[in-house]
Amino acid sequence: MTLYTNLADLIGERIEQGLYRPGDRLPSVRALSQEHGVSLSTVQQAYRHLEDRGLALPKPKSGYFVPQGRDKPALPKISRAPQRPVDVSQWDQVLEQIAPSPRNDFVQLGRGRPDIDSPTLKPLLRALSRLSRKQDLHTLTYGSIYGDVRLREQVARLTLDSGCQLTYEDIVITTGCHEALSAAIRAICVPGDIVAVDSPSFHGVMQALKGFGMKALELPTDPLTGISLEALELALEQWPIKAIQLTPNCNNPLGYIMPEANKRALLALAQRHDVAIIEDDVYGELAFHYPRPRTIKSYDDDGRVLLCSSFSKTLAPGFRVGWIAPGRYLDQVLHMKYLGTGATAQLPQLALAEYIEGGHYEPHLRRMRGQYARNLEQMSDWVSRYFPPSVRVSRPQGSFMLWVEMPEGFDSQRLNRELAAHKIQVAPGSIFSAAGKYRNCLRMNYATRPSPIIEAAVRKVGETVATMLEESPPPRN
Amino acid sequence: MTLYTNLADLIGERIEQGLYRPGDRLPSVRALSQEHGVSLSTVQQAYRHLEDRGLALPKPKSGYFVPQGRDKPALPKISRAPQRPVDVSQWDQVLEQIAPSPRNDFVQLGRGRPDIDSPTLKPLLRALSRLSRKQDLHTLTYGSIYGDVRLREQVARLTLDSGCQLTYEDIVITTGCHEALSAAIRAICVPGDIVAVDSPSFHGVMQALKGFGMKALELPTDPLTGISLEALELALEQWPIKAIQLTPNCNNPLGYIMPEANKRALLALAQRHDVAIIEDDVYGELAFHYPRPRTIKSYDDDGRVLLCSSFSKTLAPGFRVGWIAPGRYLDQVLHMKYLGTGATAQLPQLALAEYIEGGHYEPHLRRMRGQYARNLEQMSDWVSRYFPPSVRVSRPQGSFMLWVEMPEGFDSQRLNRELAAHKIQVAPGSIFSAAGKYRNCLRMNYATRPSPIIEAAVRKVGETVATMLEESPPPRN
Repeated sequence: MTLYTNLADLIGERIEQGLYRPGDRLPSVRALSQEHGVSLSTVQQAYRHLEDRGLALPKPKSGYFVPQGRDKPALPKISRAPQRPVDVSQWDQVLEQIAPSPRNDFVQLGRGRPDIDSPTLKPLLRALSRLSRKQDLHTLTYGSIYGDVRLREQVARLTLDSGCQLTYEDIVITTGCHEALSAAIRAICVPGDIVAVDSPSFHGVMQALKGFGMKALELPTDPLTGISLEALELALEQWPIKAIQLTPNCNNPLGYIMPEANKRALLALAQRHDVAIIEDDVYGELAFHYPRPRTIKSYDDDGRVLLCSSFSKTLAPGFRVGWIAPGRYLDQVLHMKYLGTGATAQLPQLALAEYIEGGHYEPHLRRMRGQYARNLEQMSDWVSRYFPPSVRVSRPQGSFMLWVEMPEGFDSQRLNRELAAHKIQVAPGSIFSAAGKYRNCLRMNYATRPSPIIEAAVRKVGETVATMLEESPPPRN
Repeated sequence: MTLYTNLADLIGERIEQGLYRPGDRLPSVRALSQEHGVSLSTVQQAYRHLEDRGLALPKPKSGYFVPQGRDKPALPKISRAPQRPVDVSQWDQVLEQIAPSPRNDFVQLGRGRPDIDSPTLKPLLRALSRLSRKQDLHTLTYGSIYGDVRLREQVARLTLDSGCQLTYEDIVITTGCHEALSAAIRAICVPGDIVAVDSPSFHGVMQALKGFGMKALELPTDPLTGISLEALELALEQWPIKAIQLTPNCNNPLGYIMPEANKRALLALAQRHDVAIIEDDVYGELAFHYPRPRTIKSYDDDGRVLLCSSFSKTLAPGFRVGWIAPGRYLDQVLHMKYLGTGATAQLPQLALAEYIEGGHYEPHLRRMRGQYARNLEQMSDWVSRYFPPSVRVSRPQGSFMLWVEMPEGFDSQRLNRELAAHKIQVAPGSIFSAAGKYRNCLRMNYATRPSPIIEAAVRKVGETVATMLEESPPPRN
């Protein structure tokens, strides 16, 4: 523990105890420096730490404040998934969601895009430009199917933060996390196999299961702690499950971080029933609290966890560079990668390697974590203000997605059609379920810095939800 | 017909009639200008045309010559494929071929790499550099799942040369031709389905069939005219074939161009039996003769042909940018692309669009066609000189691969192991067959400009083949 983290913890406790209330101005840097006998820069570091954790909000020229509070809306209910293996559907809805890009005139609250306006991304573009100017034509040829060694080394180093002990030889670079997940699924399963998934869950995985002819077994999932271990254990006893696929850190779409004890228990279950775990950690580095949460992979002692991630949510989706640490399934994953795309594009890999080697990645992550935590405050505030009080709202612990649950019977696809007239798009909940559940839910992105345009869009969504609920009130449960 | 093509045809005929013999000096530009009453520049154009067709070879300061002839070795036999659907194997051999890249100290005669040292590629790198310098962050975000519109427009325009009438709406950009083929196969087939293929055939497709659980039906293929239509017709009557996958133009590995009548007949067969055609045209623009050969797609009037290609063989493999014109299967292909990788990387697409829009692509193709035609002369000459006379050799009509067939019983995998000691690698024939046939064959790449290093390597391959044949002479047929 350092001086500044001690101080930050102290102030954090006071806020959580209610000594400072939402909206209150926090003590000035000078005052705290005198009170605790530490330097001004130590106090500043402490405040930056609190900012990262979403507990302090800087206002230019007026100091730090406790972020605006509100009566927190209720959490989404624990999902009641069908608990039997189903064929995945909803491709038409997913296509509607992803196809019209870029519809630049729409406020796209539904997309999974990070903010790409941060100045901390500039060194990445400079690296790209430098590599292109070199004109040594090296970037034009096929790279290794494993990926660039320098980038693999950097990825291995980054995974130390999540508790892993990997070397570059454990890492295969992929065309986005999408290919990592898709190759992982095909490395383990054949058509007809059953994969247990958290629910709601990433639609890319749902569609991959559909496309490859596997069945999804959606399991009840708690909006704060993740997949139900009891339900998983029952399912493992009842069905011939081949793999468990889940996003335990900063879950998409619910935003929870699975407690470490649950991660260990889930791994133990997988070992007892000898099934593989496909762990999507693409948002793990965007947890609001630092140090970042551990991965299930970090506890893996027999190579059954396939850890999948990418730089699409932290840096540049358009680079299409992801990676997988496939454990004992390396050969199979390599085969599936080969027959899907061959090698991954060279230049973006080299630019990323330079960027990370140059020490630009960690400060960028720090900045984005802080920004997303502040944006969440603002988005939550807008939802409280503009949505009817009957909605339930997730409490993300990282990343940049909010999940809103309307009463049963609400139709978020109809909502999206109404919103299209106002050039606004949200993600309908049904695409996050193999069985088309969560039609009464939606996901909104809060990556972009708050602006009057976004506020107006969120307000319009809330008002349209209210109108729809008034017109056809849901049946009483 | 123009003046210069008329003149070129005339000289070409004289060469083919034997009036000028291999090694002969051709008439000087001045002499021809006087003889035919045309300008010096018309004669020069005619010679450049002949050069493109591999019929004239310029020597600095001494004029044009008929390329060194040799007694042409026999053609490979018509393949005797198993003619029943089989499960694909050979992944371990393919991995051996592709995995150790870049093994820079090896002379890699086995790879499918184009030459990337041409100065005509420089504008592509300049486009990349310019786009990176712009720093408008546009390249960082997800692109459309269909691909960049500007690039799709350029691709549609380029396909005019092969007789197609497509618009950008018919084109989907993919992560290399690899993804185009893989998505096409999955768009049409489910596990257990049978796909008819030419034989020998591209190992990427073989492995895709294996990975997705389909069966390959290899059909006899003529080394000059391609897949046997008689065998295909029999197979279509006998088996429930879902698709025909083939590379009719500058075939990999045999190099033939399927005659246009055969292409039309194959399409008619496919229509009669209602099966899809997955046409790999990745080498079509590298045909030695200009204008380039037509695609089967160009005759397609009911959308059953899925035309797949990329810029990996003509420009930059490391960009991983390919495309597909999926005809009536657009929705399914899009779905398969989505669940495999999502969108394709943005920056390489934008750089390619700029390069093609800027008029750099056609001159580059022209240059590469000429270079590969000349390299083929040289490589054929070396093979005649250094290989034992019992080998049979393909007569490629484009691209940069030579197929060499040794007597039955020869083991090209053992050959590769012997060659490893000399840091040379060829592609063993068995990876081009689902059933592991063609173990007595090998493929060599002649993309790189001839050099003493390459000559020494080809010589070593030939000598090792000779030694192996002497040690264990093949059984008499």
